[in-house]
Amino acid sequence: MTVSSNPSEFRRLCRTGDVSGQTGGYCPGYAQANLVILPAEAAADFADLCSRNPVPLPLLGMTPVGDSSRIDNLHVLSDEDFDITTDFPKYTIFEDGKHIDTVLDIKDHWQPDSHVGFLIGCSLSFENALAKAGLPARNSTQDKSVSMYLTKKRLDPAGIFTDVYYVVSMRPYKRADLEEVRSVTRSFRKTHGEPIDWGYEALERLGIEDLSSPEFGEATEFKEDEIPVFWGCGVTAQVAALTVAHKIKGRTFGHAPGHMLILDIKDEDVVRL
Amino acid sequence: MTVSSNPSEFRRLCRTGDVSGQTGGYCPGYAQANLVILPAEAAADFADLCSRNPVPLPLLGMTPVGDSSRIDNLHVLSDEDFDITTDFPKYTIFEDGKHIDTVLDIKDHWQPDSHVGFLIGCSLSFENALAKAGLPARNSTQDKSVSMYLTKKRLDPAGIFTDVYYVVSMRPYKRADLEEVRSVTRSFRKTHGEPIDWGYEALERLGIEDLSSPEFGEATEFKEDEIPVFWGCGVTAQVAALTVAHKIKGRTFGHAPGHMLILDIKDEDVVRL
Repeated sequence: MTVSSNPSEFRRLCRTGDVSGQTGGYCPGYAQANLVILPAEAAADFADLCSRNPVPLPLLGMTPVGDSSRIDNLHVLSDEDFDITTDFPKYTIFEDGKHIDTVLDIKDHWQPDSHVGFLIGCSLSFENALAKAGLPARNSTQDKSVSMYLTKKRLDPAGIFTDVYYVVSMRPYKRADLEEVRSVTRSFRKTHGEPIDWGYEALERLGIEDLSSPEFGEATEFKEDEIPVFWGCGVTAQVAALTVAHKIKGRTFGHAPGHMLILDIKDEDVVRL
Repeated sequence: MTVSSNPSEFRRLCRTGDVSGQTGGYCPGYAQANLVILPAEAAADFADLCSRNPVPLPLLGMTPVGDSSRIDNLHVLSDEDFDITTDFPKYTIFEDGKHIDTVLDIKDHWQPDSHVGFLIGCSLSFENALAKAGLPARNSTQDKSVSMYLTKKRLDPAGIFTDVYYVVSMRPYKRADLEEVRSVTRSFRKTHGEPIDWGYEALERLGIEDLSSPEFGEATEFKEDEIPVFWGCGVTAQVAALTVAHKIKGRTFGHAPGHMLILDIKDEDVVRL
């Protein structure tokens, strides 16, 4: 299917239901965002969780309470027709910490007196920069989802958000390329920045038992001499919401995996946020 | 000794060498800051380390490269006579990761083409708020240094700053008071905010073997039913500099323990930074 490479037009097609697939590869050059929608009583604590843990949870912007049509950071999205309940291709609905449905929009679920939507940076942005530096991510060259793992590294708690653990994405690289990989991704501070750990010795620190069995995404092929390199991952946001689901009344929402929001900001401008 | 309760005047007395003692209890109501001075080639990475790890390393402000007379955040310090090399009561000098001297000023060590000074928030600010809430910290009621521990919790790395671990401060509280203690300290985001962990079960997570043997400060008395509560601690900044000393050419500097910089900003205004 041929769709527009213009973010505003792409979001319009999501809004009308004409686009409902994964966003990887669409609108090349533009940044994409993860989503969490929470009721207001959990929102201040979640904003705090982001500000205390900017590596796994780089907050790009949030809606005012109950207003699905605006993001408080116009640098990332300034479209007058925007609606956070329709402009992702696909959404997931959670109740009591369980996934209960995947839908094309959540217009009828949005509570105008309560809901707050959070946009969290996504490492797709720096994958383009890595490719330009001659260090393409394996998942992107093999057209797979990146491998993601739930770790035992704890976020610093904030309010109701206690006992939350990092989710990390993993890309294999040669140790000789590690410093260049770190350097290329470092400036992408709002999309997880440089790696948080690397090497096989990191597996025990992070509590990852089997690299071939990621909790999210697909397994990644390793070539000779490659080591795993781990980055903070925006899936941490949804895991955080699920971890404290017993403390939150009502449903919470997220984007369906891989079905991100395409933003108005270019990848290379993310470094200036 | 009676000294001024005015921060600007207190700093002047430090500058002239008339005050050289610990700052706890002086200029009550005003915030105090930790210090690290690094050569420029390590400074960008350290600023990154702070922005990636704002809980242990809440950056209040920094000097321009080579200019010891200014802090980039006028909210915390706006004194025209200020000099970061003289306005702390006492300084420590490190070479190759080892403490080599403690001195009253470091005027003659400052390199105008290279050095950058960093001011890191200090939890003294929220101790006053805890006292006002009827939950005074044991160290403050017993007039002792707070107990501080080197943990095995890793900061997210930044440039040369790899393998750096949290230092935490500890104050005992009853579990029944925990949520109130968390709530009171939460808004002090620029002075470590709410606790990072708590309870005896936290000891294993943090790698603390013996509460009665803190790495820094003094041991703290526990009363019945009390649990340890742990906060991020600004001593992390000096430990970070020492951890990567082998990657830094030249000397680095810090304040002598307990000999902080008294700022122009009041504790209660720290919550608005």
